[in-house]
Amino acid sequence: MRACVLRGERLVVDEVPEPRPAAGQVLVRSVACGICGSDVHFLRHARAMVDLTEQLRPSLGDIGALAPPPIDLGRDIVMGHEFCAEVLEHGPGTTGPPPGTLVVSMPVVVSARGVQQLAYNNEYPGGFAERMVLSAPLLLPVPAGVDARAASLTEPLAVGIHAVAVSGIGAGQAAAVAGCGPVGLAVIAALSMAGVAPVVAADPSPARRAMASRLGATEVVDPRREPLLEAWRRVDGRHPLVAFEAVGVPGVIDALLRDVPRGTTVTVVGVCMEPDTIQPFFAVAKELTVRFAMAYGPDDFRRALAAIVTGAVDVSAMVTGTVDLDGVPGAFEALARPDEHVKILVTPAAASPGAG
Amino acid sequence: MRACVLRGERLVVDEVPEPRPAAGQVLVRSVACGICGSDVHFLRHARAMVDLTEQLRPSLGDIGALAPPPIDLGRDIVMGHEFCAEVLEHGPGTTGPPPGTLVVSMPVVVSARGVQQLAYNNEYPGGFAERMVLSAPLLLPVPAGVDARAASLTEPLAVGIHAVAVSGIGAGQAAAVAGCGPVGLAVIAALSMAGVAPVVAADPSPARRAMASRLGATEVVDPRREPLLEAWRRVDGRHPLVAFEAVGVPGVIDALLRDVPRGTTVTVVGVCMEPDTIQPFFAVAKELTVRFAMAYGPDDFRRALAAIVTGAVDVSAMVTGTVDLDGVPGAFEALARPDEHVKILVTPAAASPGAG
Repeated sequence: MRACVLRGERLVVDEVPEPRPAAGQVLVRSVACGICGSDVHFLRHARAMVDLTEQLRPSLGDIGALAPPPIDLGRDIVMGHEFCAEVLEHGPGTTGPPPGTLVVSMPVVVSARGVQQLAYNNEYPGGFAERMVLSAPLLLPVPAGVDARAASLTEPLAVGIHAVAVSGIGAGQAAAVAGCGPVGLAVIAALSMAGVAPVVAADPSPARRAMASRLGATEVVDPRREPLLEAWRRVDGRHPLVAFEAVGVPGVIDALLRDVPRGTTVTVVGVCMEPDTIQPFFAVAKELTVRFAMAYGPDDFRRALAAIVTGAVDVSAMVTGTVDLDGVPGAFEALARPDEHVKILVTPAAASPGAG
Repeated sequence: MRACVLRGERLVVDEVPEPRPAAGQVLVRSVACGICGSDVHFLRHARAMVDLTEQLRPSLGDIGALAPPPIDLGRDIVMGHEFCAEVLEHGPGTTGPPPGTLVVSMPVVVSARGVQQLAYNNEYPGGFAERMVLSAPLLLPVPAGVDARAASLTEPLAVGIHAVAVSGIGAGQAAAVAGCGPVGLAVIAALSMAGVAPVVAADPSPARRAMASRLGATEVVDPRREPLLEAWRRVDGRHPLVAFEAVGVPGVIDALLRDVPRGTTVTVVGVCMEPDTIQPFFAVAKELTVRFAMAYGPDDFRRALAAIVTGAVDVSAMVTGTVDLDGVPGAFEALARPDEHVKILVTPAAASPGAG
């Protein structure tokens, strides 16, 4: 089958082996799959990300089978973990939604070797390919009439829902969100679903600020003109605050530690893959709490799909482009330039008339 | 009166103006006053500490009167905030413990200008002086028969009690403590008071490791031979873990983020006054929480005094030296060299026969 492959340190579109569903698995057609900021990071910094993960390995024993399998960068990798797919065929002795059903799934696969991540994995291709295998018990059917492109945003929305849960934000609290890329927008949507107000957000991009407003931010500023916390003090300044770091570049955590009020919880959702410098004194002097949020659990994922299906949030507002498989390398280049895009979806079928 | 004064960037022993108690205040004689790691930091890095505090000022509005008053490094400062003192005389119209009573107090003073820190303050001298003024409502009498030197350790023990409370550690959890200086030892004592076990601690100094064992650590290692988290995995490895950073130098937070298991709370008690670099990825990948603890509240302070009075903990084990006022500059030099000392007490009366 055709796929956009990370080979060496480059993306190439090429033929790769056809995946075969084992018992408990289903073969699916990738209908729409978003490109995540982590994918763009991985293309640029794969070696560093693999090295950092290996540094963590001794401390990951406690999560057992969910520890990521070692990644061999000398072998092909097919990324793509924000997918909506169509069931094609079941593995041996496997029951599940009938062929033709549109499904989403957490991007993990259960095999005889345990539970593994899809996509950041040499064995299990992600959604930047014509076909992939998923685990039957993890499939969530997408109701008829829901667009596959909207459903493919289940995964990024689940990140926001999970981060809001991890933050511990509750009734009577205010939120400040640094960054309105896909992660920040998902956090804003999840805050809106949770009824949090005010939600003050900051991003240099006018287009992203407009999306933030559509998704529920009550005040959105350009941080070059008015810093995020100054804006929060202007419009609120009295509710207990929870801040969200959704930029993922060095320096943002430290600026939040410096600027938030005493007792604030700073929830880090943006994944900064580089070393980052903080002044611990800022956090100590104000007794701050920093919570780091990663991914989501099955409940977050279900809630995200339900919110999209019912129209509780319109996260498709963040989609700024759609490409076929041949367009993926260019889409990665476009996403590496700030402001040009927010979320680009890959629709492999457009380049694969033989699939499905 | 005589005092050890921070003047310019040096400590000198000199005459300073006699403090006068206002209404609501009492004049006391400083009987014993510990030298804190923060004092040693302030002697070395006063300008940086004042600058960092000023960077925080816009975010401190919410704590109102407790915001530290600006410090003028061009004027004298008398440090010393870990004191036990003897009441000498009451301010106008002020009631309180009678003269001769031994007292401790949180190092803050209530004046017509609000609540202020003592010691890191141009107006209110701390305990490295013959006399000081305290606020009558904040005084806690020390029962007869309790040594003033032991009572002066109320403040550092309160830091440990507060950090343990902030950490959220509860029944069935384990603790790992990086660093067995005064802060780490106070944390270990507080964990012991709270019934936490196992408590695994690490320090390169054999003397500090011995103190840690006396104060309740169940396993103590030299981190140059066995890293803290490896030691925890050897002796436990199964209870949910809370880690404490009590070293306060760059790099320790990051090593804990790298080594602790998924879901761990890292409580930062050591005050690193320099920029510190972390890999946010370590904390994100394992969904860690970092809580920063500062000082204590009135309840922590009361509990610390009660633990000393009842003998529940013997924190006087950490005292490795006692000096008079003339010995303070040399004591600061000794404390800047690792391993030579843990806690040095200043007994100003020894050099001030005319006081009290």
